[in-house]
Amino acid sequence: MSSAQPRVLKHQVVRAQLDRLLDGLQVGDPFPAEREIAEMFDVARETVRQAVRELLLAGRVERRGRTTVVAAPKLLQPLGMGSYTEAAREEGHSVDRFLVGWTTFDADEALAGVLHVEVGAPILQLERVFTTDGVRVGLETSKLPAHRYPGLRESFDYRTSLYAEIRSRGVIFGRTVDTIDTALPDARESALLTVDARTPMFLLNRVSYDQHGVPIEQRRSLYRGDRMTFTITMEDR
Amino acid sequence: MSSAQPRVLKHQVVRAQLDRLLDGLQVGDPFPAEREIAEMFDVARETVRQAVRELLLAGRVERRGRTTVVAAPKLLQPLGMGSYTEAAREEGHSVDRFLVGWTTFDADEALAGVLHVEVGAPILQLERVFTTDGVRVGLETSKLPAHRYPGLRESFDYRTSLYAEIRSRGVIFGRTVDTIDTALPDARESALLTVDARTPMFLLNRVSYDQHGVPIEQRRSLYRGDRMTFTITMEDR
Repeated sequence: MSSAQPRVLKHQVVRAQLDRLLDGLQVGDPFPAEREIAEMFDVARETVRQAVRELLLAGRVERRGRTTVVAAPKLLQPLGMGSYTEAAREEGHSVDRFLVGWTTFDADEALAGVLHVEVGAPILQLERVFTTDGVRVGLETSKLPAHRYPGLRESFDYRTSLYAEIRSRGVIFGRTVDTIDTALPDARESALLTVDARTPMFLLNRVSYDQHGVPIEQRRSLYRGDRMTFTITMEDR
Repeated sequence: MSSAQPRVLKHQVVRAQLDRLLDGLQVGDPFPAEREIAEMFDVARETVRQAVRELLLAGRVERRGRTTVVAAPKLLQPLGMGSYTEAAREEGHSVDRFLVGWTTFDADEALAGVLHVEVGAPILQLERVFTTDGVRVGLETSKLPAHRYPGLRESFDYRTSLYAEIRSRGVIFGRTVDTIDTALPDARESALLTVDARTPMFLLNRVSYDQHGVPIEQRRSLYRGDRMTFTITMEDR
């Protein structure tokens, strides 16, 4: 352990200095090249590389082709039952979604158990990419018991909030149960989110229930860790 | 996009087959070598490598020296105001902590603002590694206004819950505000947690407030993403 100490300290010092440098720059400003930083602080290129890699993963800088620029702040997303579209819009972000695809398939045993339907019951799956301020931040896959949402595929505008659509059909959200894991994107996911395959992601799996405890939806959401921070406030009751 | 499809499908198929194989094995059982898996499913070594890497990061298998074995299930940790020690114990896990170090330093402007103390006020910092069932799962760094906890460094048993100690001094937790990010461990952190530096981690930053809104503690917690799943249940009110 103690032998690793000096190098870690050096890299942390460079990181702290770069953080201060970033505080004085504007979003979109060019960030100095590794070589320049190494000269500026008189440290090894490897030390600089490690510090810049941390800044990339922390979403403070981003690559634009061969140059590195100051990134916009990460999206602060409250962990909540509601629609992330609506939450991000309230914070003044422009939000959009684009369609990856609709699929219909038969529920296997595991999914049938989760959604309280018969094995083999038709499931409607909607896969969308979620963008904020023009950046692809998440890939959301919703699985719904098809019988409960007749005509959804034909009538639903995938650019809008699915939760709003479900509520407009008279369904009331009573409870959500989430698990949150970390993950790395696979090749398809990193292509859809235009993100480096080494970027740590949030993987949220949610089941939403109505006021009677009947499952409404199972959702798998993969969000870019370098573009999103979840927030949660808890009160003692 | 479409050109990437076949390889992804193949790797996903292998992953699904390995998941089924794992369902039939016990914790600690040896996992087949990459070469064996490649022969078993008649796929390329690279395809197998990608699938096994996913299983490692998902915490389904783990390395023990040069062999790979079936991992224990991940720790399900409810996101809550309370002590993670107490929560994990209630779930039947053995929990321990070991001391990395105590430090005292003067609050800089940022920390003084967070903890509502004067710039330069003494801060007591406690850094501990959190283990469950003998595995190092988290690195927790607590920063406390020293004046509020006289004698803490001398009297506190670092193996126990800091929240329980604070409560025993008559302080009531009223509210916690967390942010959750993803991160990769740096060299020091990966050594302390005995984890590969490419493992995605959860980074939680919390400020706890008492019933009067006075900050109690600022805590930075880094948890292994391959060993921990956070859960949260939300109810409509």
